[in-house]
Amino acid sequence: VPGLLMPIGGAEDKLYSRTILTHFVNICGGNNANIVVIPSASSFPYEVMQKYHALFKNLGVHEVNNLHIPDRQTASESSNLKLLKDATGIFMTGGDQLRLMSLIGGTALGDAIRSQFTNGVHIGGTSAGASIMSRHMIAFGRSGAIPSQRMVQMASGLGLTDFIIDQHFTQRNRLGRLLTAVALNPGLTGIGIDEDTALLIAADGSQTVLGSGKVTLVDSQSLSYSDLYAARRHNPFTLQGVDVRVMTAIA
Amino acid sequence: VPGLLMPIGGAEDKLYSRTILTHFVNICGGNNANIVVIPSASSFPYEVMQKYHALFKNLGVHEVNNLHIPDRQTASESSNLKLLKDATGIFMTGGDQLRLMSLIGGTALGDAIRSQFTNGVHIGGTSAGASIMSRHMIAFGRSGAIPSQRMVQMASGLGLTDFIIDQHFTQRNRLGRLLTAVALNPGLTGIGIDEDTALLIAADGSQTVLGSGKVTLVDSQSLSYSDLYAARRHNPFTLQGVDVRVMTAIA
Repeated sequence: VPGLLMPIGGAEDKLYSRTILTHFVNICGGNNANIVVIPSASSFPYEVMQKYHALFKNLGVHEVNNLHIPDRQTASESSNLKLLKDATGIFMTGGDQLRLMSLIGGTALGDAIRSQFTNGVHIGGTSAGASIMSRHMIAFGRSGAIPSQRMVQMASGLGLTDFIIDQHFTQRNRLGRLLTAVALNPGLTGIGIDEDTALLIAADGSQTVLGSGKVTLVDSQSLSYSDLYAARRHNPFTLQGVDVRVMTAIA
Repeated sequence: VPGLLMPIGGAEDKLYSRTILTHFVNICGGNNANIVVIPSASSFPYEVMQKYHALFKNLGVHEVNNLHIPDRQTASESSNLKLLKDATGIFMTGGDQLRLMSLIGGTALGDAIRSQFTNGVHIGGTSAGASIMSRHMIAFGRSGAIPSQRMVQMASGLGLTDFIIDQHFTQRNRLGRLLTAVALNPGLTGIGIDEDTALLIAADGSQTVLGSGKVTLVDSQSLSYSDLYAARRHNPFTLQGVDVRVMTAIA
């Protein structure tokens, strides 16, 4: 059975209740967890790595390993692949998802994360570390509520899920770009996660919201009409039949 | 065993030797072939449909069926799905791959094309009908030999292959956008097909070139460095370790 997938919308609480990170630790085995932190989406990987290392240690995790990937050559080193072998959880930090994919996409490490997930290792990630879980990944895009052509740039992600995951969703006004993303990928479902909010996705598809914000689902399975293809430059387009749902944590 | 995949770079000869279309007919069973033509990428679907119907008939095909999909509702009708059941080949015409995906992406027809291919039906397509075979599909982009940020827009294709297929390749100077596409999808291989040229891809990965032009492979499995993520707006970026190969038909 594959592991649990836990995308976080960024800016999860790290000082007070720590609801989300505590939950991640618990599913990974609590005190007995073995968590590998991958900070390489960030342009300050060492600072970010130290921060999460300390956080997971403070939450009682026995073994926390740092795995920074500065270049693609490092992503193929067997010592780094070995680190993943004993992990019960892998956590990817924020930064730029396109940077992290440029470092690990198509490498032995990228393959190892995917196969460990398939074998039951739980994968958490915040902000860029959440987006990169998607097969069809949002690389970057513009803010705004209303979709328009060229509002979003798609790329390959790690392919852990068919959901298109977006983050900082309400805070950065990203509904328009997620609607554009599903128009570019008809049939797929977009998931927009607010800050300090996570969605726990189980292998059977069941979903649980954690944290203080909301999760917005943009479901294009019922898409009835899209003329995205006809919109030139940055023009708006017609999009009908997309089902938008909002979920919060059960109080 | 899956069928053969036969992307064509557009403008295949239709008057004289008809090498490529004849080959497609032959793999589909020659006179006994049952070919379904899907013209809905085109903005002139009826004209295009009639043209290919006549072409395949002139090449001796017993049964040619037209399947135009004017809207997503039509893409779920059981009579249309039934047409595919007896097909030995499916042929998708040129036009706009994003238009065709907007009509059939995530529909029962899209699923049926994929499952028929998996079950041994051969799939041919020219221009837009070639690009749409990709999982990570080039939706559109700019011309030029040198890659730069935002040079190409990616979307979901039918997912019949992990190759990123581009067409009219030399004629429209598309090396730059294919290099940008593999930078956005590290580990994948781009295939740029010239006009009047086809690549026959077998389930075991073996490849045969047909027609008068060339096929350019842009292989990023050996990618050593990409800083695509750091390029802003339409700026160029550094890309190293991409293996470019060129193939023509064996004389």
